[in-house]
Amino acid sequence: MTSITRISILLLTLSLTFFLAMSTLASAQGMKKQHAYKPCKQLVLYFHDIIYNGKNAGNATSAIVAAPEGANLTILAGQFHFGNIAIFDDPITLDNNLHSEPVGRAQGLYIYDTKNTFTAWLGFSFALNSTDYEGTINFVGADPIMVKTRDISVMGGTGDFFMHRGVATIMTDAFEGQVYFRLRVDIKFYECW
Amino acid sequence: MTSITRISILLLTLSLTFFLAMSTLASAQGMKKQHAYKPCKQLVLYFHDIIYNGKNAGNATSAIVAAPEGANLTILAGQFHFGNIAIFDDPITLDNNLHSEPVGRAQGLYIYDTKNTFTAWLGFSFALNSTDYEGTINFVGADPIMVKTRDISVMGGTGDFFMHRGVATIMTDAFEGQVYFRLRVDIKFYECW
Amino acid sequence: MTSITRISILLLTLSLTFFLAMSTLASAQGMKKQHAYKPCKQLVLYFHDIIYNGKNAGNATSAIVAAPEGANLTILAGQFHFGNIAIFDDPITLDNNLHSEPVGRAQGLYIYDTKNTFTAWLGFSFALNSTDYEGTINFVGADPIMVKTRDISVMGGTGDFFMHRGVATIMTDAFEGQVYFRLRVDIKFYECW
Repeated sequence: MTSITRISILLLTLSLTFFLAMSTLASAQGMKKQHAYKPCKQLVLYFHDIIYNGKNAGNATSAIVAAPEGANLTILAGQFHFGNIAIFDDPITLDNNLHSEPVGRAQGLYIYDTKNTFTAWLGFSFALNSTDYEGTINFVGADPIMVKTRDISVMGGTGDFFMHRGVATIMTDAFEGQVYFRLRVDIKFYECW
Repeated sequence: MTSITRISILLLTLSLTFFLAMSTLASAQGMKKQHAYKPCKQLVLYFHDIIYNGKNAGNATSAIVAAPEGANLTILAGQFHFGNIAIFDDPITLDNNLHSEPVGRAQGLYIYDTKNTFTAWLGFSFALNSTDYEGTINFVGADPIMVKTRDISVMGGTGDFFMHRGVATIMTDAFEGQVYFRLRVDIKFYECW
Repeated sequence: MTSITRISILLLTLSLTFFLAMSTLASAQGMKKQHAYKPCKQLVLYFHDIIYNGKNAGNATSAIVAAPEGANLTILAGQFHFGNIAIFDDPITLDNNLHSEPVGRAQGLYIYDTKNTFTAWLGFSFALNSTDYEGTINFVGADPIMVKTRDISVMGGTGDFFMHRGVATIMTDAFEGQVYFRLRVDIKFYECW
């Protein structure tokens, strides 16, 4: 073995090592990047909203509590509810059946905020309390109701969802006049702790 | 030295190097993980809420501003306030004394959102302005009031709390009928910038 | 070549490799830290709020929908609007001209929350829909209106702003009595995905 061969092998070792270190780092970043677009946790849940219409106090899970001056709070504030605030405490289920055993409650508010179509702004929390999950998930976002699927932000969580962040895709799964609607929520966490 | 020995040493070098690169990475991730569960900053503060009852306009720091149709805004909307929205601008103090020098204001809204017990949904900010801290902290979360301690999300901040995230544990420190309550807020930041 | 020389070279290889791995990691972390204080994306946008005064239903983009008991919803709830909630669906433009082509809508609520000056609490989303940007940005924060520039949290986003976080500096760019105001929003993202 000549010393040139020896030096070549050492240089090869060095460059190979450097390449390995770089690629390990790159793949770590790649994983983070991939991680970014591949959920580290995913949950599909449904919640059910029964709107108070003045006669269903027992069953109602939500109520319109504010409206522009002059509007009757229990009916439309204009055709598209502009300016209505509704507060809710809705059961969360694992499937689309209102009568399934709830795994928690969806609590917060939605606001109808367009004059010429149905759109809402959402601020709410999921308080989960089941054998599988214990903790809260906090959401905020715009909800263009007439679009098939809408993305809102999952901004934080507690308990089993401690510090989690993500995006939730919501879909209106049922809508029955002014009394009942059901949302399907596909929660994709991209930051898990 | 045989060439087999030489190759062995080179392979050893390579694998050791790879191991070092991996373990360095792993410990970097390990640190992040540890960081996740040990606050990088912590603050315990109190805030004081004096509810407007129609007679205390001077002292009141909060007011119920919305309720389901037909409810009287200054009294109970049903036993558990379901559907009430209250807006507040409450003094923040370092101890549990309402008359201590405020270090800032807690501003935002709370919503009573259950029909058969007391629960709330919170969206508010701490605007701190003291010799120790200057900046804002933004909170959102579900508040099952009757539970001793509740966790909500700290979703962001500005100034001294630029981009911070964390979890706040709130506790009802005093509750005097329909007029006054005091919350103890233990803010634990897990992401500091 | 003595075997001591050989071992020395191997040790050198090892330490150099370790140094390289460490410095690569350090610079990666250094970049993240630097990244923290230099926006990875920045947007300056304006939004325009035309408040419903009982006569401008056609043009109005916002409405006061809640106030403490006894207040008239279309005028001042006291001098500083304490307790008023306004809901808005405001056009977003690239410049300060109300009549420029909108690039999206600002939707959500603001709350007047001080008795002795003008301050607000904001919860809203930008829904952008232009050739440049498609997606939503979600904001929460305290707004001490009389201060020239105010910082609020950018807590999340969707679409082109998937998982983004940052801080937005807002400035009142125009204020015309009780009917119109325009906000300049300088959005600085410090976490881009």
